[in-house]
Amino acid sequence: MFERITIIGAGLIGSSLARAIRRSGCKARVVVADRDEEVCKKVVQLGYADEVTSDLPASVKNSDFVILCVPTGAIKVVGEAIAPFLKPKSIISDVSSVKGSVIETLAPLLPESVDFVPAHPIAGTEHSGPESGFAELFDGRWCILTPTAATPIKSVEHVTQFWENICRAKIEIMDPQHHDLVLAITSHLPHLIAYTIVGTADDLEDDLKSEVIKFSASGFRGFTRIAASDPTMWRDVFLNNREAVLEILQRFNEDLTAMQKAIRRGDGDFLFDSFTRTRAIRKEIMELGPEGYANPALMTRGKSEDA
Amino acid sequence: MFERITIIGAGLIGSSLARAIRRSGCKARVVVADRDEEVCKKVVQLGYADEVTSDLPASVKNSDFVILCVPTGAIKVVGEAIAPFLKPKSIISDVSSVKGSVIETLAPLLPESVDFVPAHPIAGTEHSGPESGFAELFDGRWCILTPTAATPIKSVEHVTQFWENICRAKIEIMDPQHHDLVLAITSHLPHLIAYTIVGTADDLEDDLKSEVIKFSASGFRGFTRIAASDPTMWRDVFLNNREAVLEILQRFNEDLTAMQKAIRRGDGDFLFDSFTRTRAIRKEIMELGPEGYANPALMTRGKSEDA
Repeated sequence: MFERITIIGAGLIGSSLARAIRRSGCKARVVVADRDEEVCKKVVQLGYADEVTSDLPASVKNSDFVILCVPTGAIKVVGEAIAPFLKPKSIISDVSSVKGSVIETLAPLLPESVDFVPAHPIAGTEHSGPESGFAELFDGRWCILTPTAATPIKSVEHVTQFWENICRAKIEIMDPQHHDLVLAITSHLPHLIAYTIVGTADDLEDDLKSEVIKFSASGFRGFTRIAASDPTMWRDVFLNNREAVLEILQRFNEDLTAMQKAIRRGDGDFLFDSFTRTRAIRKEIMELGPEGYANPALMTRGKSEDA
Repeated sequence: MFERITIIGAGLIGSSLARAIRRSGCKARVVVADRDEEVCKKVVQLGYADEVTSDLPASVKNSDFVILCVPTGAIKVVGEAIAPFLKPKSIISDVSSVKGSVIETLAPLLPESVDFVPAHPIAGTEHSGPESGFAELFDGRWCILTPTAATPIKSVEHVTQFWENICRAKIEIMDPQHHDLVLAITSHLPHLIAYTIVGTADDLEDDLKSEVIKFSASGFRGFTRIAASDPTMWRDVFLNNREAVLEILQRFNEDLTAMQKAIRRGDGDFLFDSFTRTRAIRKEIMELGPEGYANPALMTRGKSEDA
């Protein structure tokens, strides 16, 4: 389908994509581009690309499929750098966790001859960098496509086939703004809260902090995993999905205030009812399938509850 | 060491203790008592006790070691029921997640001839009931003992040996109030937040809610597991550790407000710095050892990040 695929940004997602293409036996030439020379050296060593370059314009020439795997905040500068060099009729896509602002930023920069298919694979670990990727990252995970009015159906189909056949992901098509709201709830707010609670613990006196670390298995530990996620990526998520995150955060704050009041007043019935109804959602989620990866080998690489 | 051990309350912890005693080959007679006749029938079927009874007073007669595995809120009524029947020189212990209020409630009820060794094993899953226990639940986990001024060292040693040799747990001795503060941070606040965020999602319109469930792997899913924990147990935790939880919750709220302001103002530097410093805690936790159980067979039973 594609003869030459360029992946820009060799972080967790970019390097996993390159490895997934290798795994698939797909004959496409894989070009990995990264502005950071040190990252490029690492990619060469790791050997999952046919070409590695820090020259972004050169990397996209003659490519049928270009995937931006850079933090959301870098989309603009990378888009500007590559736009004049994109091959006519090529497809450009991305993997950003926020879709509305990426479309707003990138679409106007692209030549008319190029099709933009915004994408967001819901997969990740708390690890980052060119050595953190693995071919199985997307196996059985969702990848949400958020085509715009200008995106031809044919190109959406090509990108769908790429994610399904090469990456073994499941595709969902969604409106960009709706995507941003859903992800604000399922991903952005949980990350914000995890970062906050781990920060609250970090502010404790040293003695108490070392005990918190020691006895972290009682619930805190799961939050620290989420709060170890890439700071640049997450800064950009919150800067670019501000409205949806603030809206959901406000609802959460109201609910937390109600809990706080119930604890202060000793209102056991309110607490019991609140803690009971949340079990229903867990049940529905468990009915959707087993937790985490189908492949147990991946358990050691960090459970994929991120991005 | 003990000839007859009574476990009162056949939930996750009680049934796991009975199974751990069985596994150890320890010769002690295991009596499991539960007020609920249906639970007793289940325990008989499951076969991990030598005697099963719903008669609590009868269950403690002639026992050298009595462990209360009931919700914190039931400690008083159970304590009153059994106190007159406890064997002189026997040891009584518990497994409650809150120590200060349990000591305050139970200690005055007990005859002087009995030694009280408050305990809290930091282990659990989101499952509850007599069929949810398993012998390996405490393997390699911490069990915190919070003896009072009245607790003889000899009895603390006996309980230590029980947890170390029979349950394969690691023992830590701590002041009860300090325990309650540490656990408020590592366990109680994380649970409160998980319950709250899952409740916030539960309030969404139905369409949005089903998408949140579908795409839960992006972070939300881990919160739903915590928020599926036993409602009675957790109601009692918050009613009994009110001061410490409210104190920590206030700090968390201040930190969350700072995050909210930074998002509203688009203060990327603040967000980046906040998201960077939290990585250090994760690093320290990972250096303490691998996540979850050493025994991979237990992964399917729910990771032990509770209680």
